[in-house]
Amino acid sequence: MSRITISPRIRMTPFHESTVAAGLSDLTVYNKMVLPTSYGDLKAEYDRLINGVALWDVSAERQVEVSGPDADACVQYLTSRDLGKQKEGQGYYVAMCDHAGRILNDPVLLKLSGNRYWFSLADSDMLYWCRAIAAEKGFDVEVCEPDVSPLALQGPKAEDLVAELFGEHIRDLRYFGFIETDLDGIPLVLCRSGWSKQGGFELFLQDGSRGNELYQKVLTAGEKYDIGPGAPNHVERVESALLSWGGDTTPESNPFESGMGRFVHTDTDVDYIGKEALQAIVANGGPERLLCGLIVEDETVDAWPLPARTPVRHNGEEVGTMSAIVHSHRMDKTIALAQVRRDLVEQGEVVQVEGPAGQASATITSLPFL
Amino acid sequence: MSRITISPRIRMTPFHESTVAAGLSDLTVYNKMVLPTSYGDLKAEYDRLINGVALWDVSAERQVEVSGPDADACVQYLTSRDLGKQKEGQGYYVAMCDHAGRILNDPVLLKLSGNRYWFSLADSDMLYWCRAIAAEKGFDVEVCEPDVSPLALQGPKAEDLVAELFGEHIRDLRYFGFIETDLDGIPLVLCRSGWSKQGGFELFLQDGSRGNELYQKVLTAGEKYDIGPGAPNHVERVESALLSWGGDTTPESNPFESGMGRFVHTDTDVDYIGKEALQAIVANGGPERLLCGLIVEDETVDAWPLPARTPVRHNGEEVGTMSAIVHSHRMDKTIALAQVRRDLVEQGEVVQVEGPAGQASATITSLPFL
Repeated sequence: MSRITISPRIRMTPFHESTVAAGLSDLTVYNKMVLPTSYGDLKAEYDRLINGVALWDVSAERQVEVSGPDADACVQYLTSRDLGKQKEGQGYYVAMCDHAGRILNDPVLLKLSGNRYWFSLADSDMLYWCRAIAAEKGFDVEVCEPDVSPLALQGPKAEDLVAELFGEHIRDLRYFGFIETDLDGIPLVLCRSGWSKQGGFELFLQDGSRGNELYQKVLTAGEKYDIGPGAPNHVERVESALLSWGGDTTPESNPFESGMGRFVHTDTDVDYIGKEALQAIVANGGPERLLCGLIVEDETVDAWPLPARTPVRHNGEEVGTMSAIVHSHRMDKTIALAQVRRDLVEQGEVVQVEGPAGQASATITSLPFL
Repeated sequence: MSRITISPRIRMTPFHESTVAAGLSDLTVYNKMVLPTSYGDLKAEYDRLINGVALWDVSAERQVEVSGPDADACVQYLTSRDLGKQKEGQGYYVAMCDHAGRILNDPVLLKLSGNRYWFSLADSDMLYWCRAIAAEKGFDVEVCEPDVSPLALQGPKAEDLVAELFGEHIRDLRYFGFIETDLDGIPLVLCRSGWSKQGGFELFLQDGSRGNELYQKVLTAGEKYDIGPGAPNHVERVESALLSWGGDTTPESNPFESGMGRFVHTDTDVDYIGKEALQAIVANGGPERLLCGLIVEDETVDAWPLPARTPVRHNGEEVGTMSAIVHSHRMDKTIALAQVRRDLVEQGEVVQVEGPAGQASATITSLPFL
């Protein structure tokens, strides 16, 4: 594992000093920003997420803000989900596609007050895409990256901690529901969301200069809830089948083969980019591949390293790609995510993947695992 | 310095195995791909670049290919340089701007045969930008990221090595001139280019499966020319004032304040994105800031770490940002790159920067240093 060279080309996060103090050992780059990935003990971080509260610096989940008179129309044109029923204070998980129906990003779209939206992004530069579309379509909007840096609190005790910090009313927030609030004057948006199935909240910090102050307040208040540092958890995200855009998807993937079909409306009057291409996929019988789970016959206790997508084979023929493989602590099994030819997924076939000790057998299963 | 977590979301390079064998110790992420940054001895890598041949895996310099009937018009619309005189086999250094004149990328644009172009990119996703523009403008083009991975040979002995590998005719190639050729059947484009002022070539490998084969051939042939592994060299690039898009530029930078003014044509009939905004900057007297050099009063022999842009001050007032600082081996001075208020740059004033031992004095100077 090589060291990473940090430079002004890669942005540090507003919480960086606190993450270093917390023992940051591993990181990656996401949206041209540092994303902490471990504090040196992945199993302890997993246990904390499942049983307590994990505090994640997910500043790299950048926002693209679209605001102005044409914001509704512009945002609708940029997403393949019908936004007609979205209310202020509500987040929607959406796909953003290109004109060929390829999925460019799978953000959570927050509808703020005052004709203003945030796309809370996966790892691809949507700022440029949105600016290009807005300018060429002539939408009267401003598109910018605001000073907003999410800090996630994930795990079963996160709600109690957040209620202590912000008040009991936060227990009424629905999933992806959010409010504009503050913590001792630190301005933020509080959203019930986050990249785990353990439940939790994201604090969208709106003043980067106060990142370490916010981090310390949360860490101190969280002591009694078994809080500790962590990061989007690779094992839990595979167990829960949370999509990693750019990992589980390929540059050619469409939303139907990425597990996002139910968020794509093709039978709607609203106009959006990629609609015709997506309608054609449906008209032609649906996607050729589907995201699925694999239960892999394997005695290895630790995850295999998987630096790139690897082939999935069926009777010697390449039928898909595997994008993540881990040892599930709760299932005590080796499990994986893959995109595989649809007929095989629907039949639940046995396939083969390349393991550390040669070919390994794997059974296709539905998602999520847990 | 933390370890980097590698995943399928970050692409490895076709030369990865060879770079590991060569002692890869440090890397960064650029265009969602691994970019080697050091093999453990930066001074030796510098000396090799100045005196011999440095072999750089710059696969992360991804290409966006635009091809098809409207390729000329589309590529022109995407760049702020008048391309009227560009010939096949010729590369142009260009700025790509948005509608507000902000610089989105500073690629080398290669005009290939057959109505086909490559933008050889800095670190920002232009694939999405180009696809958005092409689709919304209705240009009849295909926009893709081809399987092309540059390998750079930089340094005074690079020409002899490349002549030995490809023939004496390559000595006639002009700067940014290129030919489509092969090496023992490995298809590539050979271009006189590269991110150093030492002179050299880039081999744009066109078959990722043959990366390690190409690397080894070049390494073996290069032995007598003192070849060795290396990476885009931070010290040399500051001495030579080679722009780091995203490092020396800010998200709001225009080409005039980034040292790219001479590649921007505002007095032209051709239509391109950002033309009006760039014309307005000229009409209003030019940019407010300019990229400049700083000679810093400092006794530190090594470079200061500079993980983020830092303020430049003049009489206490913030007048710009410093984006890179190194100890120049050849000048035996501490030198830096900064964007500073134009009147101060034009007067060559003394400014202050924040150093490891408090404020340090710095004299503004013209670029390049060497």
